[in-house]
Amino acid sequence: MIHIAIVGFGYWGPNLTRNFHNTPGCKVKYILDLSEHQRKRAGNMYPDVTTTSDIQDILSDAEIDAMIIATPVYTHFDLATKALNAGKNVLLEKPMTSTADEARSLIDLAGKVGKVLMVDHTYLYTPAVQQMKTYIDEGLLGQLQYVDSTRINLGLFQTDVNVLWDLAPHDISICRHLLGERPLSVQAVGVSHTENALENIAFLTLFYPDNKIAHFNCSWISPVKIRQMLVGGDEKMVVFNDLETTEKLRIYDKGYTVLPQSDRDRILVDYRTGDIRIPKIPQFEALAELAKDFRDAIVEGKAPVSDYLSGLEVVEILEAADLSIKQKGREILL
Amino acid sequence: MIHIAIVGFGYWGPNLTRNFHNTPGCKVKYILDLSEHQRKRAGNMYPDVTTTSDIQDILSDAEIDAMIIATPVYTHFDLATKALNAGKNVLLEKPMTSTADEARSLIDLAGKVGKVLMVDHTYLYTPAVQQMKTYIDEGLLGQLQYVDSTRINLGLFQTDVNVLWDLAPHDISICRHLLGERPLSVQAVGVSHTENALENIAFLTLFYPDNKIAHFNCSWISPVKIRQMLVGGDEKMVVFNDLETTEKLRIYDKGYTVLPQSDRDRILVDYRTGDIRIPKIPQFEALAELAKDFRDAIVEGKAPVSDYLSGLEVVEILEAADLSIKQKGREILL
Amino acid sequence: MIHIAIVGFGYWGPNLTRNFHNTPGCKVKYILDLSEHQRKRAGNMYPDVTTTSDIQDILSDAEIDAMIIATPVYTHFDLATKALNAGKNVLLEKPMTSTADEARSLIDLAGKVGKVLMVDHTYLYTPAVQQMKTYIDEGLLGQLQYVDSTRINLGLFQTDVNVLWDLAPHDISICRHLLGERPLSVQAVGVSHTENALENIAFLTLFYPDNKIAHFNCSWISPVKIRQMLVGGDEKMVVFNDLETTEKLRIYDKGYTVLPQSDRDRILVDYRTGDIRIPKIPQFEALAELAKDFRDAIVEGKAPVSDYLSGLEVVEILEAADLSIKQKGREILL
Amino acid sequence: MIHIAIVGFGYWGPNLTRNFHNTPGCKVKYILDLSEHQRKRAGNMYPDVTTTSDIQDILSDAEIDAMIIATPVYTHFDLATKALNAGKNVLLEKPMTSTADEARSLIDLAGKVGKVLMVDHTYLYTPAVQQMKTYIDEGLLGQLQYVDSTRINLGLFQTDVNVLWDLAPHDISICRHLLGERPLSVQAVGVSHTENALENIAFLTLFYPDNKIAHFNCSWISPVKIRQMLVGGDEKMVVFNDLETTEKLRIYDKGYTVLPQSDRDRILVDYRTGDIRIPKIPQFEALAELAKDFRDAIVEGKAPVSDYLSGLEVVEILEAADLSIKQKGREILL
Repeated sequence: MIHIAIVGFGYWGPNLTRNFHNTPGCKVKYILDLSEHQRKRAGNMYPDVTTTSDIQDILSDAEIDAMIIATPVYTHFDLATKALNAGKNVLLEKPMTSTADEARSLIDLAGKVGKVLMVDHTYLYTPAVQQMKTYIDEGLLGQLQYVDSTRINLGLFQTDVNVLWDLAPHDISICRHLLGERPLSVQAVGVSHTENALENIAFLTLFYPDNKIAHFNCSWISPVKIRQMLVGGDEKMVVFNDLETTEKLRIYDKGYTVLPQSDRDRILVDYRTGDIRIPKIPQFEALAELAKDFRDAIVEGKAPVSDYLSGLEVVEILEAADLSIKQKGREILL
Repeated sequence: MIHIAIVGFGYWGPNLTRNFHNTPGCKVKYILDLSEHQRKRAGNMYPDVTTTSDIQDILSDAEIDAMIIATPVYTHFDLATKALNAGKNVLLEKPMTSTADEARSLIDLAGKVGKVLMVDHTYLYTPAVQQMKTYIDEGLLGQLQYVDSTRINLGLFQTDVNVLWDLAPHDISICRHLLGERPLSVQAVGVSHTENALENIAFLTLFYPDNKIAHFNCSWISPVKIRQMLVGGDEKMVVFNDLETTEKLRIYDKGYTVLPQSDRDRILVDYRTGDIRIPKIPQFEALAELAKDFRDAIVEGKAPVSDYLSGLEVVEILEAADLSIKQKGREILL
Repeated sequence: MIHIAIVGFGYWGPNLTRNFHNTPGCKVKYILDLSEHQRKRAGNMYPDVTTTSDIQDILSDAEIDAMIIATPVYTHFDLATKALNAGKNVLLEKPMTSTADEARSLIDLAGKVGKVLMVDHTYLYTPAVQQMKTYIDEGLLGQLQYVDSTRINLGLFQTDVNVLWDLAPHDISICRHLLGERPLSVQAVGVSHTENALENIAFLTLFYPDNKIAHFNCSWISPVKIRQMLVGGDEKMVVFNDLETTEKLRIYDKGYTVLPQSDRDRILVDYRTGDIRIPKIPQFEALAELAKDFRDAIVEGKAPVSDYLSGLEVVEILEAADLSIKQKGREILL
Repeated sequence: MIHIAIVGFGYWGPNLTRNFHNTPGCKVKYILDLSEHQRKRAGNMYPDVTTTSDIQDILSDAEIDAMIIATPVYTHFDLATKALNAGKNVLLEKPMTSTADEARSLIDLAGKVGKVLMVDHTYLYTPAVQQMKTYIDEGLLGQLQYVDSTRINLGLFQTDVNVLWDLAPHDISICRHLLGERPLSVQAVGVSHTENALENIAFLTLFYPDNKIAHFNCSWISPVKIRQMLVGGDEKMVVFNDLETTEKLRIYDKGYTVLPQSDRDRILVDYRTGDIRIPKIPQFEALAELAKDFRDAIVEGKAPVSDYLSGLEVVEILEAADLSIKQKGREILL
């Protein structure tokens, strides 16, 4: 039985708690939150869990195997360092840390103490992303050419990070998972309309080998909510609309073939379009899968899907994006 | 009666012909096309129009008041120069020319010969854009903050220009019209998946004073067709979906107010949402309005909406975008 | 404090339990279900509630003020009779009973014992229906003309009632609420494709005074799920799409005016269309409102919205619909 | 060369003219309309066609092979009788005639004079209906169970027929085409909100052998325009949305299997859902196909798809529907 402490019971913590509570082989022993209101709420929902505001209660409890950290990002490094040093396995909310150096330092430490360090990129466990991954691995889409994601809404403004640190981790981690390679460089622009100068609308581009490109449109100030990702290959293209309940994926048998160039004025392009298929994909809660993956990483030493390298790459790219935004879109090599 | 020659009867020429044919006070006398097939087609549709493949027929006909040029962009400068020198008024298809220098040269020449020089940015005459312009001028949206446009489809690859030169003129001219000011700088990225190295997917950003930003997503390789523009103000936001037939505009009474900052960790943002309104807007053909505007510019000396400054700015921005793409997104000051 | 027993913990029982559990002034003391599996599930979710399979436990407990009956419809009459005779207030799941005679008998008994008898027509408490009711009461729609509802999906086949008894109670109770009057007659058709001869697709029409008509399309065998109700007045029309999350209502400023008839061949109709408005309506859980309404009916003697007359009318109409279906659509006077 | 006279140049006549004008082997010689305005309009569009207001011009012109009648329905019988007696082939707009007796009389006459008599049920020639017909003929849908059509909008009120005579001919002729059999009986209800007592909202049901049912919801007073037809089989179901431009058909791999009944309380139903497929269907104008079919019927004696039996059945059903409406929904045997 893995004994677990949930650190942070704000927006995401209750979801983590519920899922680990329901995961066979896991037992939530502590819920930590600095707010008395949240501790009371947690206590009402989980009467058999101990609530606390003191991290020492958790660090010093030898029965605790794992700490799940869902606090503001600037606290991640300190909390995770303490947890690993206390011999706890760690699951960190996304983004992993505030800087890539912090992430690398945690990875080193996890190696030294021999504990699991994992980052919660929940999307990697969704049925839709897993299905797209299967299509790509099977070659269904042909040669990948682009990812174009729009993730906008009238959102809760974060007060410590900009819109890219809030929303783009989803897109970056999905891209890494689907493309299976590292971008060569990063480029971003964005503006802020608030006094704290944190961008509330921003556009991030990743350049990959072979003219592959990924572009993410992130905004907290859109009146409409859109969660749409286009993944284009030269054989087929997939549209992933996460706001649909049962029709999340559409596979377009559309593409084009560039024919041999016959004269300087004309590229002959053979357009074709075929059926559209909306596959039936299984319905399950991604976070429950992540919880099992974390458990199995601890118990069986299994490599988790959402590993620390994924967490590190997300932070590296966000760091580069910040640099690029400051220079109005200059390319930053990774 | 304005006597008109249509030069180029390919994709857009027939639409221009039909509209000028139906414009009171205008008479289409010539249709020029180098292709015999197109001349025959034009002749069947308009038996009383003279078809020709020789530009001299038009230039030397003293009765011709105006030449409407709907040929590939690289031919615009030469044809328009000849037309103006022959004392003809000129309407050029968008984009106006291949370079900003050419555009400036034509503007000078038009001034010297005292003839009308206009560019066909049809969108400026659409009911939806005119309605948005009215909202903005009346202050309905409050302080403008961003324009975010997606103009993607599985499109006809152009063989002489990239996707920005093909699609972005719409967005750039609409932005100029709505915002009424010139961007400070331009930034763009894009990639090509064909041998001729013309970008088929590209993202263009315009930076304006006061942290206003405009971003255009243009693609010929999207399986879905999207024509959506978000215009965000701090009072209201408008979504313009050009694929809707009767519900092109949606006005969102959504916004946020940044309250005085109370502490360093927290921006207090007051979210509010209200009704959505889908206004009834008039239904008319934009190109018919443009035809009348061209006629009135010739006959009455009226300043047209889609003027040469609009045409020039579009080309300046596209030129800067090309430069930025080559440098992987570096900002280009205008 | 109202002490409550939930009878039936199948599909809807858990929702009732959760809402009464959260209603101030209410305490769920018992959950009854004949299935051990369901009792165990209930016990896990509500450790402080007593689970039982014996109705006598509840009837004989003097502390119990109210029984909430969410069992198959054919058991309603017997259970409610016992409850009322034991001095309990009763909330019945819809439809109220299997026959109108049973419903009338329960109403009589409730009057005699002086207890609350209420039926759970949850829809009457939804924000969308309440908003429509307000519009109608304020005269916004003008003179009502029709209600046209489509309530279809690939559904769970009921095994004891046909599709009308399953789905139409929603439409009938909403209609009664909105129109505020009783239909003159009922007409229905339907067919069954299963051996038990219970209709799985059926169409129900209600005739009202002044040529008002209501029509309900109910199906368990549609591949698409639709929950759409059109409410048409001669001033405005409302479309209620219950599958939308935030845009459930659309108000159309569309209508027509019949002008004085000028000759026998021509009705002059003045068409007009205006804006469409999507009102912001509050978001709350309807069942929580119903729970409070039941509590207040018991404690304060307040007349509930979803009263027994509503329950009776639904059953009368369903009974008439069954008769009409057997006669292939013959009108049945109410 | 078939010489053709178009009789009636109101709403549909121009479409018929354009298509027969473009049909190889056909030549439109006359356009008849009683309105001088329409004749002038016709003359401008087709300068080489003779316009007239006198039917005798056409009847007495021996060169005329065919009359295409697109006038109000109450004039069909008289005009078609004259045309057939004058030895002309006849294409009648839908609905064929005002009464089934008239239709039968025309059919007899056409037989006697040996001329083609055809009715314009354009929908039978649409790519979507043809594709559905293919699916059904190939057994893709399994055993058909129901057709459920919604054809509503804020429409032009007809002044001589009710909404069923206006809109239901489409649904009835499609059903006949798809199911390939005759309904056993007809049932309808409807109401009028205008002084002339012509129903503006009505619901028509057709009963077929083996519990197949077809239901049509027709309205001129709906704020939203819907053109949706569900065709349900026990293997697959098709949704035909005629307002979609490229995604008119959706094929649902959804269905259910009724398992052997194990006890009286429970029908075991095995639900299954699979992929949804949106087939690529060809794009062509249905009316052009109908024009060719009429031409081939005249020239080659080929049996047309939209034959007079289809026209007769539509009128028989509409006649029965009127009778049923008068009796508030009573079933009328065909």
